[in-house]
Amino acid sequence: MGDVAERLAEIVGEKNFLSGEDIPEDYSRDEDLTGAPQAPAYVAKPDSAREVAELLKAASEHGVPVTARGSGTGISGAARPVAGGLVVSFERMNAVLEIDAGNHVAVVQPGVTLAELDAAAAEQGLTYPVRPGELSGSLGGNVATNAGGMRAVKYGVTRDNVIGLEAVLPTGEIIRTGGKIAKSSSGYDLTQLIIGSEGTLALVTEVIVKLRPRLPHGATVLAPFGDFDQVMAAVPKIIASGVGPHILEYIDAKTMAAIVDREGLDLGVPAEIRDSCDAYLVVALENRGPQRLAEDAEAAGELLAGLGATEVYFLDGGAARRLIEAREKAYWVVKAVGADDTIDAVVPRTTMPRFIAAAQELAQAVGGDALGCGHAGDGNVHLAIRCPDPVIRKKLFTDILTVATELGGQISGEHGLGRAKIGYFHELVDPAKIELMRRVKQSFDPAGILNPGVLFG
Amino acid sequence: MGDVAERLAEIVGEKNFLSGEDIPEDYSRDEDLTGAPQAPAYVAKPDSAREVAELLKAASEHGVPVTARGSGTGISGAARPVAGGLVVSFERMNAVLEIDAGNHVAVVQPGVTLAELDAAAAEQGLTYPVRPGELSGSLGGNVATNAGGMRAVKYGVTRDNVIGLEAVLPTGEIIRTGGKIAKSSSGYDLTQLIIGSEGTLALVTEVIVKLRPRLPHGATVLAPFGDFDQVMAAVPKIIASGVGPHILEYIDAKTMAAIVDREGLDLGVPAEIRDSCDAYLVVALENRGPQRLAEDAEAAGELLAGLGATEVYFLDGGAARRLIEAREKAYWVVKAVGADDTIDAVVPRTTMPRFIAAAQELAQAVGGDALGCGHAGDGNVHLAIRCPDPVIRKKLFTDILTVATELGGQISGEHGLGRAKIGYFHELVDPAKIELMRRVKQSFDPAGILNPGVLFG
Repeated sequence: MGDVAERLAEIVGEKNFLSGEDIPEDYSRDEDLTGAPQAPAYVAKPDSAREVAELLKAASEHGVPVTARGSGTGISGAARPVAGGLVVSFERMNAVLEIDAGNHVAVVQPGVTLAELDAAAAEQGLTYPVRPGELSGSLGGNVATNAGGMRAVKYGVTRDNVIGLEAVLPTGEIIRTGGKIAKSSSGYDLTQLIIGSEGTLALVTEVIVKLRPRLPHGATVLAPFGDFDQVMAAVPKIIASGVGPHILEYIDAKTMAAIVDREGLDLGVPAEIRDSCDAYLVVALENRGPQRLAEDAEAAGELLAGLGATEVYFLDGGAARRLIEAREKAYWVVKAVGADDTIDAVVPRTTMPRFIAAAQELAQAVGGDALGCGHAGDGNVHLAIRCPDPVIRKKLFTDILTVATELGGQISGEHGLGRAKIGYFHELVDPAKIELMRRVKQSFDPAGILNPGVLFG
Repeated sequence: MGDVAERLAEIVGEKNFLSGEDIPEDYSRDEDLTGAPQAPAYVAKPDSAREVAELLKAASEHGVPVTARGSGTGISGAARPVAGGLVVSFERMNAVLEIDAGNHVAVVQPGVTLAELDAAAAEQGLTYPVRPGELSGSLGGNVATNAGGMRAVKYGVTRDNVIGLEAVLPTGEIIRTGGKIAKSSSGYDLTQLIIGSEGTLALVTEVIVKLRPRLPHGATVLAPFGDFDQVMAAVPKIIASGVGPHILEYIDAKTMAAIVDREGLDLGVPAEIRDSCDAYLVVALENRGPQRLAEDAEAAGELLAGLGATEVYFLDGGAARRLIEAREKAYWVVKAVGADDTIDAVVPRTTMPRFIAAAQELAQAVGGDALGCGHAGDGNVHLAIRCPDPVIRKKLFTDILTVATELGGQISGEHGLGRAKIGYFHELVDPAKIELMRRVKQSFDPAGILNPGVLFG
């Protein structure tokens, strides 16, 4: 081992350090569908902010690129290391430090998973409401990508639920931003700047999140529609109605068929309705009391029927849970049925029909396909793209994402740009804005050691 | 007029340009209680982002410091110009550009006031829910200070409701951030970085905000308590109960007496209850239906009675409106009754009693007083400080704000640091964090022309 390796091993201890051939393949990738794995030179597993600081000082000194890793469930390649680089894995920093019921706040280390945090919050009748599909995702990773998920329509995304951070700068300085406070007007909001920065500004060593009361009563309404445009037209009306769904998803008929088939689900929808269906809307409601929930579910059902739903199904608890879980796994379904890559563009909610129609037309014009589901309340469209030729697919992605940006949308609603989408970012976004971001990056990381190749070329 | 003046006048037109003695006194200050007015050298009133860009280019070229001005209702001196500087006043950029009911979004110019925006939103059954006390405040100013107000307990502050900006960099580049979209993971969140930056990073020329359904039914519950600690203990319980107040304020007895007296309010509270009262809690609820509202108001009343309220008053619409309006004017009441300065620290909600008690003790120890009211649901405490000697007061403020930061709070919850609070910021906040903010500032404004003296020394 060279000088650097010795120094890194010394910081975290031999048994928390790996190099060369000893590094398991898992550290070479995340769940990105397309990028080739890249082994790092070193993996270090610190157990404190102080150790992270020492690692970053050593990496800065020796010019070693650093990639942070939570549980590796990202799907844009932001946790894929660079050759010769160091992976800082937060797997040992996995403690729920505090559930503060009085302030409705939790303090956690970055390696804590969503499932672990929610289990701890549940003991106090509280919940951390952000639900990206993968509950084994870590809070640190969620902060890095500004993860979203199905409940964002009511609770917002990671950005809306994280109120403080401890983070280590590449210089080894440890800073604290925000706190257990609801608001602040005391200088730049560094919390918000670090959220979504995909490991390029600082390494997060502690996360303070808001918790919410855990509402005990839930109902799920499933509405098949014969006409996709009606699904989309229904969305703003459900939002405006005030029933306040915490889930408002659309699933196109082919994707629903794949989900139902793969998961062996029986939703009680007869074949003739399935066959005439173009897309489904899933509306989930929750309440602290059963009476109000029942009223709201009935109101939602009537509204959906009036907006053109072929039928309205009130799913029982078990079926509802299985459908939501299956929808959360849609990414894997998509992978299993042979999608070549995915898009998660976000557009203004009312432009979703135009965006989806344009994407399908563009895909079909090159002999491919664009199917999917999405967070209808947020304008966040998940498209599984079938188009095996990588050169044609790159052009197709550019064309589809051009439509998204022309409609006032952006390239990624919640997956992040990572390494997978960065080319489109540089092609489609105002260079003045990217240059400004680059200068902001330099203000945190002048030597450019944090996740080079992510966000910037 | 010199070269610079000629150039600036040329950009906006002679009639939209003022210099020297022609500048009305109003442009020399905002509503900060303590700072001495400072006349700028020039005032320019652009009517487009292009004109703002030209102004900033000229200012950069000639090294002229620039202070942005909305309607001048800030109370920390961030709109007080520097000697020899240019005030860019947004009074002519005051158009509501769009109320987009389908996306629940408004697009406005920075000179639009909160009252104007809300009137436009109301026509579509929508509302912009951020309510800092002063409805004549401009959206541009709200973005600069990250304004909060009474409804933050339900709807959040400016930061939580602004989803996109158009902004001009000191170089004259015009950038767009965010958009009519609910979420994004596509690079650094420049929207959030600019919000709360008090005119030090960029000049905002367009603001995209979220709108919410306007709920037609409201109720206000007023609860006097004999013991301040009980007021504070009640707050987390009301939050946890799920009745979901949009206003949750405490008002101490002396402040309430001053408000009632000045506004000639009759709240129906008999003298003997007023006399035994240490502080009041105001709980306002809203709903789309009258039935649920009535149930929630009753539940809130019962809860308050069980938590130690001496009595519970359900205010009628007129009295409730007058009380809320009077509370919004508390700043002016405080000014009228002779406060020397104000504090708006934010602390973790559960630490409010300790913070307020410590502040009162510290003030009384120097023969002064610390009274007030505050956003109890947010931990945002507004204290009117009586302590006429400026040297003793400075020491007192440092001591009080030290307690706030030691409790995990910050110096300003919603007023901003401006020029008034910047000394405490530099005294109490981690220098590594301030240095990082300074580098971020340089990444936007390398020549340092934007609002020098604000945030940084």
